[in-house]
Amino acid sequence: MAATRNVTPPKYNDITGAIRMLAVDAVQKANSGHPGAPMGMAEIADVLWNRHLRHNPANPKWPDRDRFILSNGHGSMLVYALLHLSGYDLPIEELKRFRQMHSKTPGHPEYGYTPGVETTGGPLGQGITNAVGMAMAEKLLANEFNKPGHEIVNHHTYVFLGDGCMMEGISHEACALAGTWGLGKLTAFWDDNNISIDGHIDGWYTDDTAKRFEAYGWHVIANVQGHDSDAIDAAIKAAHAVTDKPTLICCKTIIGAGSPNKEGTHDVHGAALGADEVAATREHIGWKYPPFEIPAHVYEAWDARTKGAGLEKLWNNKFAEYKKAFPKEAAEFERRINNQLPADWAAHAAEFIAKTNEKAETIATRKASQNAINGLQPALPEFLGGSADLTGSNLTNWTGAHHVSGKKPGNYISYGVREFGMSHIMNGMALHGGFLPFGGTFLMFSEYARNALRMSALMKQRVIYVFTHDSIGLGEDGPTHQPVEQTATLRYIPNMEVWRPCDTVESAVAWVAAVERNDGPSSLIFSRQNLAFQKRDAAQIAAIRKGAYVLSEAAGGKPQAVIIATGSEVSLALEAQKALAAEGINVRVVSMPSTNVFDKQDQAYKDSVLPKGVKRVAVEAGVTGGWYKYVLDGAVVGMDCFGESAPAPELFKHFGFTTDNVVAAVKKVMG
Amino acid sequence: MAATRNVTPPKYNDITGAIRMLAVDAVQKANSGHPGAPMGMAEIADVLWNRHLRHNPANPKWPDRDRFILSNGHGSMLVYALLHLSGYDLPIEELKRFRQMHSKTPGHPEYGYTPGVETTGGPLGQGITNAVGMAMAEKLLANEFNKPGHEIVNHHTYVFLGDGCMMEGISHEACALAGTWGLGKLTAFWDDNNISIDGHIDGWYTDDTAKRFEAYGWHVIANVQGHDSDAIDAAIKAAHAVTDKPTLICCKTIIGAGSPNKEGTHDVHGAALGADEVAATREHIGWKYPPFEIPAHVYEAWDARTKGAGLEKLWNNKFAEYKKAFPKEAAEFERRINNQLPADWAAHAAEFIAKTNEKAETIATRKASQNAINGLQPALPEFLGGSADLTGSNLTNWTGAHHVSGKKPGNYISYGVREFGMSHIMNGMALHGGFLPFGGTFLMFSEYARNALRMSALMKQRVIYVFTHDSIGLGEDGPTHQPVEQTATLRYIPNMEVWRPCDTVESAVAWVAAVERNDGPSSLIFSRQNLAFQKRDAAQIAAIRKGAYVLSEAAGGKPQAVIIATGSEVSLALEAQKALAAEGINVRVVSMPSTNVFDKQDQAYKDSVLPKGVKRVAVEAGVTGGWYKYVLDGAVVGMDCFGESAPAPELFKHFGFTTDNVVAAVKKVMG
Repeated sequence: MAATRNVTPPKYNDITGAIRMLAVDAVQKANSGHPGAPMGMAEIADVLWNRHLRHNPANPKWPDRDRFILSNGHGSMLVYALLHLSGYDLPIEELKRFRQMHSKTPGHPEYGYTPGVETTGGPLGQGITNAVGMAMAEKLLANEFNKPGHEIVNHHTYVFLGDGCMMEGISHEACALAGTWGLGKLTAFWDDNNISIDGHIDGWYTDDTAKRFEAYGWHVIANVQGHDSDAIDAAIKAAHAVTDKPTLICCKTIIGAGSPNKEGTHDVHGAALGADEVAATREHIGWKYPPFEIPAHVYEAWDARTKGAGLEKLWNNKFAEYKKAFPKEAAEFERRINNQLPADWAAHAAEFIAKTNEKAETIATRKASQNAINGLQPALPEFLGGSADLTGSNLTNWTGAHHVSGKKPGNYISYGVREFGMSHIMNGMALHGGFLPFGGTFLMFSEYARNALRMSALMKQRVIYVFTHDSIGLGEDGPTHQPVEQTATLRYIPNMEVWRPCDTVESAVAWVAAVERNDGPSSLIFSRQNLAFQKRDAAQIAAIRKGAYVLSEAAGGKPQAVIIATGSEVSLALEAQKALAAEGINVRVVSMPSTNVFDKQDQAYKDSVLPKGVKRVAVEAGVTGGWYKYVLDGAVVGMDCFGESAPAPELFKHFGFTTDNVVAAVKKVMG
Repeated sequence: MAATRNVTPPKYNDITGAIRMLAVDAVQKANSGHPGAPMGMAEIADVLWNRHLRHNPANPKWPDRDRFILSNGHGSMLVYALLHLSGYDLPIEELKRFRQMHSKTPGHPEYGYTPGVETTGGPLGQGITNAVGMAMAEKLLANEFNKPGHEIVNHHTYVFLGDGCMMEGISHEACALAGTWGLGKLTAFWDDNNISIDGHIDGWYTDDTAKRFEAYGWHVIANVQGHDSDAIDAAIKAAHAVTDKPTLICCKTIIGAGSPNKEGTHDVHGAALGADEVAATREHIGWKYPPFEIPAHVYEAWDARTKGAGLEKLWNNKFAEYKKAFPKEAAEFERRINNQLPADWAAHAAEFIAKTNEKAETIATRKASQNAINGLQPALPEFLGGSADLTGSNLTNWTGAHHVSGKKPGNYISYGVREFGMSHIMNGMALHGGFLPFGGTFLMFSEYARNALRMSALMKQRVIYVFTHDSIGLGEDGPTHQPVEQTATLRYIPNMEVWRPCDTVESAVAWVAAVERNDGPSSLIFSRQNLAFQKRDAAQIAAIRKGAYVLSEAAGGKPQAVIIATGSEVSLALEAQKALAAEGINVRVVSMPSTNVFDKQDQAYKDSVLPKGVKRVAVEAGVTGGWYKYVLDGAVVGMDCFGESAPAPELFKHFGFTTDNVVAAVKKVMG
């Protein structure tokens, strides 16, 4: 195989041998994992890490470090080997516990588990997309904070990716944008090994990848021998020389290089080699040491601690000078990079909510969302907004936002029609630090981006998703655009907080909650159509943050039933309350903008909102299944079918969102 | 704008004028819709439909018709105008009711609503992907059924697409495959108008699209003047001349061409022009007729009925000759194209289920799935299998399957790492007819494909999704690969039937149900790990098809509580039943492989499985929220957090899937 593809095999040595054998032995010990990529990319990793990467193993959070991303995340042992060998706090014992419970070496790299792992990897195409986000954040932050003679933001983003990443659609979205944005400090290494899980890729992957990336406006270095250190070194230098385009280095490699009987085949991709082949590999590459034993000369060669400490010290000095010359900007940089809110934030937010309440506007909640963005942004220079080509519909822009245009920086991004790319890019920006990214699309197209939302939640990143046109209320565009199950399914992503506000005040509170959240993403769900303003007292306004609260108490304070509603259905619940009162039935209306947040309250609060033994009816223009958790043996007024194309008022009526139906449901559950 | 891009404006006439004004007037009347694309593509549509498209308006189901797909589906008035003008059963009254309740002219083209609409459009990038699937189906069907001198399958697939489709990642997945597969009868027309919703695309879309498609191996015809009929005609002829590559015709157009004050801007994309501009447009293009009035000479020029009837008659004669020469093949072709199951199907399926039951194997359900594929395929030559590069993990292949390799046809497809592309391509194949497509990936990566699954359900297509590695039971790969919320969220897609079988017999029944379903897709969810075989009597086996049934009755037949479980948790439920019995508590175990199917049963059956007033506990290794619908005020043993990387048995214990926990939950709900 190697011969027909003209791949020069490696010259084995102990430096790359350490990577290969750590990967082989760890996978063998776990009897689970992927040795192929670490073995195939050992020389590339050696050259990048030992000759170019600017990082400090003692401080994985040094703001101006180069970022290294393994987009082919299944090859996690590669990054664990690199981190261990170069001196990060990742002892050999952790490598022996590869893929075991609560180790620092999980099956795929997990952000927050392992010092030096910059993002969670595994779902293919996502690492390259995160990397584009990081490189974009670097560029925008440099643009904002660097001053003549003071380059405090100036680092590279390096990413390894495989054929799988190249095939995924998201790589198209991200890499096209990287080209448009001219991300000159982004360098990608394509592990061109001609193998994916189904075998030799010729039957399903025949792209001229170099040409494809040239079409995106990248600087492409084709046909690099991926096991030839000098060729790799020359390519990296060439990449650095081109500063207005991202670079793709196409590295011809042999998957599993070093395994004499399995290299170049998919057998080496995702399974332990087996004891015999492990021994044969040891012999073949001349590695004389037992499993997990690294000789001193190898540790010495890899040790990046002294160099890294020196690099960071230089930067610290540079930053100290910056601080002297620009104290305000330096303080702001430190605040931003540490994800701290401004000192006046709480007051600013409270004032905005109060003003919103005073205005008492009946408008679409997407417009209320735009008002919130406008109202909060003077206190939040870290806002980095955008939309997947629906700015005028999502209303994600604000007065005075500076649009990124091609290579020109700004703080508002037209991402193009690229929902998945946008979302993972935002994850990359959040991981990089310095920004609070938010981005909009229609709620329906959250589906295109769904795995990126999950990754935000898994990585606990503060990313804000603005999803507008939230139900059949969007009207004529019809069932392809009318969310039915989307809100319900977003609520099921662990650690996602979903808000579906019913008016301007709930919209403002949802935005503030999302900004203040420091351990995960939020999905803010807004209507296309106008929603009535609701009057509340101060205690009710404060209670919005609990996810659900009594918006309108039953006459006499003793509810015979409770109607729970969200968003556009809150008005309907209030109408039903009134109609029932006319018949002498006193019901409470609970607004529940966030089930996720309500779930986190203590039992006493929950019982105070939904009293035990009182029958309940939930109303939401979406699927019903998730509501039984709150109504138990009560009823749900919702829709479990697709929508239709027609004006919105007709649709609400057609699908049963009428006062009569809610009244009937309440009466029925009351028995 | 037009000038700087060197776009030649249209020479207006009544033929193209009819398209422009039908679109303009219908959008104006509805005060909703997208006039820009129909106006910008009027000349392309005229040339394609009047000079090349082989179709018969009287029979939109003629099997050998050319397929026409509007991937920029928001321009739905274009296809409605074309269908009306060329003689389909779409009267002018329906065009007047554009975007109104239950009209045949919904906001986006909806499959099944409008004769001649080949697929549901709107979510961008999906039409081109459907088209790739249709062209692939044509190729595979031709390969299977055509005989020397008898070309009964020989038609083209034409697709219009816009910049939005080009930006979406799915276009990369689908178009790369189209290139690899050499789909010579696929012709795509790119509406290169330089505008998307955020405005002029230069800030976010700078691909060299021609070069990109050349990199995929397409035949690219660049720089075609999209308002010059002869240039378009020449390009189509050039496309036909290249038979081993799909063709992209890059059409430079002016969005909204004909609107004197709005053309070339995004103002004309997605809103009514307004009365003044409608009048100005009428004047500008020289259209002398009132709204919705088409003069006779225009109808005559467009009428495709005589030509279409002739074309179909020729084909009918050809097919009659084929039938004479190859009666068996002709009958099979007719069966396949009409989505009918073979005469011996029911017997074959019943025998397979019986045999599976006799074997009583304890294996992974993904292996049980493969056994089902192997067991059913002798009766199902329409099976068209595949996987998004996980064949060896999904176990979607079968003995004797013929792999598609590059341009070589077959009946098993390695789709590459392209989950979204695979799924929409399968929709295209199902829409084309002649095949029963199924495709596999890890359950987690159903997320990448999610909107395609929704489109299968919306279009009621028989597509079977095989999702393996269904829970933390996949073990070491960790939280990025461990489904937690995926099964629950798939269940919420309207018209999707989700099955999570607990053993070989339920797996076999799920496959049979999916094959027999004629009004929608199925998601079959399988384990990586072995699951114990369960003994059942004939009535129980028959009851699996009802979605839930009593797998193990409480001792004495009088359950004090019910445990509901699915998939890998059924064994756990049975263990808990045993442990409770030892304490004198008699519980029933209900296996509920499909909540969706159970929901469709009558109340009497539901009550027979879940008796009213008896407390219930549900057990599933996934999010809990959806289960309250079935347990009401009972309890759910599940997990609402992300998984971990560790061996599977440790994970089940760690996350509380233990007999003790289930026993405790039952006791607690019993009070």
